[in-house]
Amino acid sequence: MKAFVQDFGLAVRQLREGRGWSQEQLAERSDLNRSYVGEVERGSVVPSIVTAQKLALALGVDGAGLLARCEQLEQSRAAQRIRLASIAC
Amino acid sequence: MKAFVQDFGLAVRQLREGRGWSQEQLAERSDLNRSYVGEVERGSVVPSIVTAQKLALALGVDGAGLLARCEQLEQSRAAQRIRLASIAC
Repeated sequence: MKAFVQDFGLAVRQLREGRGWSQEQLAERSDLNRSYVGEVERGSVVPSIVTAQKLALALGVDGAGLLARCEQLEQSRAAQRIRLASIAC
Repeated sequence: MKAFVQDFGLAVRQLREGRGWSQEQLAERSDLNRSYVGEVERGSVVPSIVTAQKLALALGVDGAGLLARCEQLEQSRAAQRIRLASIAC
């Protein structure tokens, strides 16, 4: 489940950077602390569903959209692992 | 955000009951404590995204699917409030 938390953070970072926002701007819009947003993006804290929903709303996606993006990241990583394994064999 | 947590619990309960499972069965399948599953369903605890993902996987939906269901419940409640307000006017 650690990979899931990291992918969630990566999805948040990608969406934030896609909007050209600093962590501070995202923190303000989502009513969260700036350093906490940084920790979420690095996958070093496990956010609650309320935090996830706040971030999703601030980023203009719904919570489901944010998790879907995170699941896509997981799938593409799994696909990459399979490709690397087939090269190694 | 309290309504969001309650809707999340309701979505979990509806999916669990739809499968004919007891809280104990869901707890076993999701590797969570039975009483904790009960608290999640009642909306009396705020689950982490990891707990949400565990529950979603046990219920055979992805995390995004579970949040989407929860957001649908929120929307239908909002629509009901509008209907009630229009009757009251």
